[in-house]
Amino acid sequence: MKSFIELDDLAGDRLEAVLARARELETRRVTDDLRGRTVALLFMNPSLRTLASMQAGVAQLGGNSFVVTAGQGSWQIETRDGAVMDGDAAEHVREAIPVLASYGDALAVRCFARGRDLAEDLADGTIRTMASLSPVPFINLESAAAHPCQALGDWKTLDDVGVPRRGGRFVLSWVYHPRPLPFAVAASALAMAARRGMDVTVLRPDGYSLPEPVMARAARWAERAGGSVRETADREDAMDGAHVVYAKSWAAPAFYGRPAEEAPVRAGLKGWCVSEAWFRPAAPGARFMHCLPVRRNVKVTDEILDGPRSVVVRQAGNRLHAQKALLVEMLGGVGR
Amino acid sequence: MKSFIELDDLAGDRLEAVLARARELETRRVTDDLRGRTVALLFMNPSLRTLASMQAGVAQLGGNSFVVTAGQGSWQIETRDGAVMDGDAAEHVREAIPVLASYGDALAVRCFARGRDLAEDLADGTIRTMASLSPVPFINLESAAAHPCQALGDWKTLDDVGVPRRGGRFVLSWVYHPRPLPFAVAASALAMAARRGMDVTVLRPDGYSLPEPVMARAARWAERAGGSVRETADREDAMDGAHVVYAKSWAAPAFYGRPAEEAPVRAGLKGWCVSEAWFRPAAPGARFMHCLPVRRNVKVTDEILDGPRSVVVRQAGNRLHAQKALLVEMLGGVGR
Amino acid sequence: MKSFIELDDLAGDRLEAVLARARELETRRVTDDLRGRTVALLFMNPSLRTLASMQAGVAQLGGNSFVVTAGQGSWQIETRDGAVMDGDAAEHVREAIPVLASYGDALAVRCFARGRDLAEDLADGTIRTMASLSPVPFINLESAAAHPCQALGDWKTLDDVGVPRRGGRFVLSWVYHPRPLPFAVAASALAMAARRGMDVTVLRPDGYSLPEPVMARAARWAERAGGSVRETADREDAMDGAHVVYAKSWAAPAFYGRPAEEAPVRAGLKGWCVSEAWFRPAAPGARFMHCLPVRRNVKVTDEILDGPRSVVVRQAGNRLHAQKALLVEMLGGVGR
Repeated sequence: MKSFIELDDLAGDRLEAVLARARELETRRVTDDLRGRTVALLFMNPSLRTLASMQAGVAQLGGNSFVVTAGQGSWQIETRDGAVMDGDAAEHVREAIPVLASYGDALAVRCFARGRDLAEDLADGTIRTMASLSPVPFINLESAAAHPCQALGDWKTLDDVGVPRRGGRFVLSWVYHPRPLPFAVAASALAMAARRGMDVTVLRPDGYSLPEPVMARAARWAERAGGSVRETADREDAMDGAHVVYAKSWAAPAFYGRPAEEAPVRAGLKGWCVSEAWFRPAAPGARFMHCLPVRRNVKVTDEILDGPRSVVVRQAGNRLHAQKALLVEMLGGVGR
Repeated sequence: MKSFIELDDLAGDRLEAVLARARELETRRVTDDLRGRTVALLFMNPSLRTLASMQAGVAQLGGNSFVVTAGQGSWQIETRDGAVMDGDAAEHVREAIPVLASYGDALAVRCFARGRDLAEDLADGTIRTMASLSPVPFINLESAAAHPCQALGDWKTLDDVGVPRRGGRFVLSWVYHPRPLPFAVAASALAMAARRGMDVTVLRPDGYSLPEPVMARAARWAERAGGSVRETADREDAMDGAHVVYAKSWAAPAFYGRPAEEAPVRAGLKGWCVSEAWFRPAAPGARFMHCLPVRRNVKVTDEILDGPRSVVVRQAGNRLHAQKALLVEMLGGVGR
Repeated sequence: MKSFIELDDLAGDRLEAVLARARELETRRVTDDLRGRTVALLFMNPSLRTLASMQAGVAQLGGNSFVVTAGQGSWQIETRDGAVMDGDAAEHVREAIPVLASYGDALAVRCFARGRDLAEDLADGTIRTMASLSPVPFINLESAAAHPCQALGDWKTLDDVGVPRRGGRFVLSWVYHPRPLPFAVAASALAMAARRGMDVTVLRPDGYSLPEPVMARAARWAERAGGSVRETADREDAMDGAHVVYAKSWAAPAFYGRPAEEAPVRAGLKGWCVSEAWFRPAAPGARFMHCLPVRRNVKVTDEILDGPRSVVVRQAGNRLHAQKALLVEMLGGVGR
């Protein structure tokens, strides 16, 4: 596997192998799998968990990493092909990617959605171009349309806390956020749950359906894995028997790239903040998941985050184990 | 010792042991005391010495570290409990702390005073909450009310340059700064000098007495250690026979959180800039100390900083040795 | 060699030795030449290649590094002697340099031109003062007047792609950029090519002659090495038989420090963007060089950068090998 752009890049058996290795690395934290290897980390957008867990993970595997943050101590980086670069960006990905790759044995990049054109962002062309420009193994640390390291850690988290694969009821719920957000985490969580064979419900207000390609891919996975995918605006119905609620906010597709037009609709949806009341129809001990960072008392109440339902810290912790397993899978055997 | 929040957390013998190890690590820079260990570093505020010396120190002990800087390549982080997070901060310490801690074997955090409410800042609740949220050893890299790593390095510096413990005359002098600053360094330096058994004088303009709890704690240490603590606005009196002047600026307690009201008072105090003239009544060879960064020719003249009295670079150098000793004390024996 | 401020600091044989070691380290990436050594990296200005390649290089040599970026998670740093520091800068290089040096075994610093006074910037006093304040080996990562690590990597690049030393025709061409830039890269590239014994032509619009001291130094190198240095505004003439075009933008010396006055002149020079048409009179297979970052379709067209002439990624890659060789030269034998 030369590039890890989305969870699909880990075909059936390899996904299970990576999950198995993640479990192993959780108990045996320090190894020398990456001894002498350098991992380049490029962040075009803010990060806490990814920034920290990639550095910690590479070091714990005996390797080295370095971080370049576009626009923060480094140049602003242009991603558009053919741009006449007479604005703020001094550097183009067509140079930055091969250069950074040349200093390392792998390159991992975060580059969020541009947020202007829905089809463009869903096609995830920027991260795919970056991967194609890298002569070394490439890892997506969240792109316009996918956050596969998160999905990997989330899969492990569901396993850890005993949420069933087949028959497990997974609710991906839209929640309020002051601004329209991209689809990357929602799309990856949805595909992950569907591939896991769960019965998946997307709970969202009217007008906030996930884009058709996102739903269609999840449906294909559900069919293959023996689960199901549906969507609804009815919370009671969605939560009925749910084992887990995965909260995430996203943009209204019809207003994509025009946040001012979406604002009045969005303003009426502040009630979409997960609270204990949501869990009344859920399965006993149902869990709350979120990729973090989370806006407390906006997307979810303190009560949930500080209570026994929340596995958000475990999800974040699993980022470390999952990414280390992925790095070993991608780099462990090369050139040793 | 699970948390190092203030110098008091190193009880009598352990403080001496850490100082002894700091001296040893000054001559034997590279060890493997932290081999395989990861130290997470979270900065909510700017840093030069702490940022550099923690990274250098962990590496020289054979370990690894990573840095997360809130709002600089990472999210802005909310510290207030119960906040409705609809503003700039996307992340809350109640997630950030356990998550970062989960990637490492220790967590060290800088989080300055909020500067709104004096009692709140002196209680140092934010750093104490952070420490309580960390399942791994926790180090305060300067909080609202304490800078214990600085105090540790300062203690060693005083030893290095032969300033006596009992009978040593230590002047903590307020100096001018364009803005009101927190009490952390002043409080830690004062407690350190008092615990060292010195005769301590706080020299400050009228209206700039240190808060009562800060003075009271120093008085308790002085009593235990056989020294004394007093305050005065009379420079000649304060400097009489002084072995060392430790310069620091701080806010006027009466105006705490209302800088505009303090401004006219402060503007009249630009003469509080340490110069050679200050040292006329001092002991021969009296030293100048400051925690850095220092505003030249505002808090102290070039002449002092570039002359033989200044030990500010040595103080900063001792941050490395002291923190390495602390890390070995806190982490060296765990899980090896 | 205690300081590496400009390429001249590597006298004849030592330059060849460093280049030879750079070639060796290109094929043998991981060594333990810097085991147990700490390299402090201070950036006063943005960086991508230097920031990344220094960290990667030190790690690949078995050492450790840390990064401090002025004004980005660290304090803004004053460089002027005698400054009354009542503005934004909280820290002065007179403290920052010895402090950071005290944490490491070497210190490397980037500090661009101030851009106010031409003679002052060409004298490169700030980086020289910094070097004098460092008790440990000091490396210039681009100063007001020199970028010697770039020159070292460029020399290797010319060797790599077979551009002849004696008889090689090197064109240093001014190109358009929205703002006036410093002379550091141009001066270092010019001196490098002249020292390499090449026939060097500076191609620039009227009013954009390089400053006399820059030309004079190159002329001295040319005389010693058996090459030549000339300047012209005639592109056809300059490009005649050229083996390589090195593009760089710089300020008009007559307007130095007064960008608003230069702006109308500069605005008329947007045609100075390297394109395939430039190469008509050049030698077959002539190369395009640039230090990066480069503004695409402003300084040079996509066609050139994405085509076979461009060696810009190789230049950047050679930064890694050259700097590693330099580090081994400066640090490899000390204290081991």
